[in-house]
Amino acid sequence: MALKLFPKGREFYELFTRSAGQVMAAANALDELVNNFVDVPAKVARIKDIEHACDKITHECFERLNKTFITPLDREDIHALITSLDDVCDAIDATAIRLQLYRVDKPTPMLKDMAALLVRCTKTVHDAVVRLDEIKNPEQILAECVQINKLENEGDQLLRKAVGDLFDTEKDAISLIKWKEIYELLEQATDRCEDMANAIETVVLKNA
Amino acid sequence: MALKLFPKGREFYELFTRSAGQVMAAANALDELVNNFVDVPAKVARIKDIEHACDKITHECFERLNKTFITPLDREDIHALITSLDDVCDAIDATAIRLQLYRVDKPTPMLKDMAALLVRCTKTVHDAVVRLDEIKNPEQILAECVQINKLENEGDQLLRKAVGDLFDTEKDAISLIKWKEIYELLEQATDRCEDMANAIETVVLKNA
Amino acid sequence: MALKLFPKGREFYELFTRSAGQVMAAANALDELVNNFVDVPAKVARIKDIEHACDKITHECFERLNKTFITPLDREDIHALITSLDDVCDAIDATAIRLQLYRVDKPTPMLKDMAALLVRCTKTVHDAVVRLDEIKNPEQILAECVQINKLENEGDQLLRKAVGDLFDTEKDAISLIKWKEIYELLEQATDRCEDMANAIETVVLKNA
Repeated sequence: MALKLFPKGREFYELFTRSAGQVMAAANALDELVNNFVDVPAKVARIKDIEHACDKITHECFERLNKTFITPLDREDIHALITSLDDVCDAIDATAIRLQLYRVDKPTPMLKDMAALLVRCTKTVHDAVVRLDEIKNPEQILAECVQINKLENEGDQLLRKAVGDLFDTEKDAISLIKWKEIYELLEQATDRCEDMANAIETVVLKNA
Repeated sequence: MALKLFPKGREFYELFTRSAGQVMAAANALDELVNNFVDVPAKVARIKDIEHACDKITHECFERLNKTFITPLDREDIHALITSLDDVCDAIDATAIRLQLYRVDKPTPMLKDMAALLVRCTKTVHDAVVRLDEIKNPEQILAECVQINKLENEGDQLLRKAVGDLFDTEKDAISLIKWKEIYELLEQATDRCEDMANAIETVVLKNA
Repeated sequence: MALKLFPKGREFYELFTRSAGQVMAAANALDELVNNFVDVPAKVARIKDIEHACDKITHECFERLNKTFITPLDREDIHALITSLDDVCDAIDATAIRLQLYRVDKPTPMLKDMAALLVRCTKTVHDAVVRLDEIKNPEQILAECVQINKLENEGDQLLRKAVGDLFDTEKDAISLIKWKEIYELLEQATDRCEDMANAIETVVLKNA
């Protein structure tokens, strides 16, 4: 079942790959931030820069879509893929901003675990996106989608543990509100990776 | 305007029906939990089991989609239907987990009202799904979708009343945060039923 | 690249235009409410009336879709457009309800800024919708979509500033919870305008 999805649409493939690269860079930058919590404003600004770069790729994709008559994938699928990647970046940026905005003193071990999981998750998204070029091997891409779903489930469990611990130990309500939101936003980044997996799955199902 | 939607695609129809059955079972199990709040961990685990069963049906549906060349409905609609059902189950599971995680002492009357409403809502979803087999009677299915929308509106009003009461009477901020989230998650289950109604509506509009 | 999108489907165009008009009316009514915070229940009820009117237009659109064999746009796009407009109205209504439900004393300057931004945003949505009739000028519509995206970014920044200030100054956790939710809901209205911009973009990309 060999199929070249992007015979004349390599530009779209390249845009997806570049966007997935930015998503992975954002996750790595967040991981670095929470593991080495110094120069916070500069590191948060760095993540914002990555998010802007991702935005630019998204708009480039939309413009190209506007100029292209025959697209390698259905227009709505190209839209869904590039938008999902953008959403992951947005959630990572939103998490980083809160760490600064809420004047967090010190990342918790739980936060570090969640950031590490996100790194693995965005790496798997990137792997799947790179493979989209030739859907020779849909089973492999679908296996990566399953893997992303599994990581998202793990993320969900980490979040529940983090929030459960928070309610058990944090007696200051305002501090609890801050940490709960930070954990939830970080888990949303993983959730948006799952949306990306679903968008990939749809493309593979339609074209394989 | 008689139409057999699933002449050769009965498997999809059966997957939707089984998934809608699990959704109804989850709502009933939650209703039982809040009305008889003993053995909480076991009952929460039971809801998690139902959610896993629903997940398995969802993946079975995706795999079948992958192997089927000509589908009885558009691929993206099959995707939307099975995903919406899955989302309802997820929200019910999320609510049950919080009841245990936040060490709730006693369900409130408001929570019982919201659970009862969800039971009616998932029952209507199930009725509509069962009827999908032969769209002989689109008016009836569409009427059920309208009914689900109405129940969702009721759920919204229940939520507002519950949260309003909470702010008027609950002086402990951490307890307020817990209950607000539990109410909101339960209302989200009803919201996801509305998404399902919209997905059904789309299918009927396209095929009737 | 002149194109008449609604040669025989003027009714859909008129429904979009009417819905966008209600959305703009809701934003204006909210702006009036926060700038002249008297007769709150009556003004909140007025916004609820607008939201109901918007709902009715949405259902009229669905019914018409059900009766129309050949539609001027893809069915799913008509669905997306009318649903996005409805979602904006819902978020405005949800914000207004909280102002009453949470017994807010006095709107903050930040809330007024956010309401003013929403007025500009819904006006731009309306401008783009009106122009949908004849996509003679896709560049102009797409420019309006870009503008909506920019306003949504501004809204995001306003929200972050508002919430940051809140955590810096508000020491009462329950009051903080109320204001945080009000700000977030109002920003969600702007977010839903962005969803509308994306739906418009999709239609233009498909048809231009």
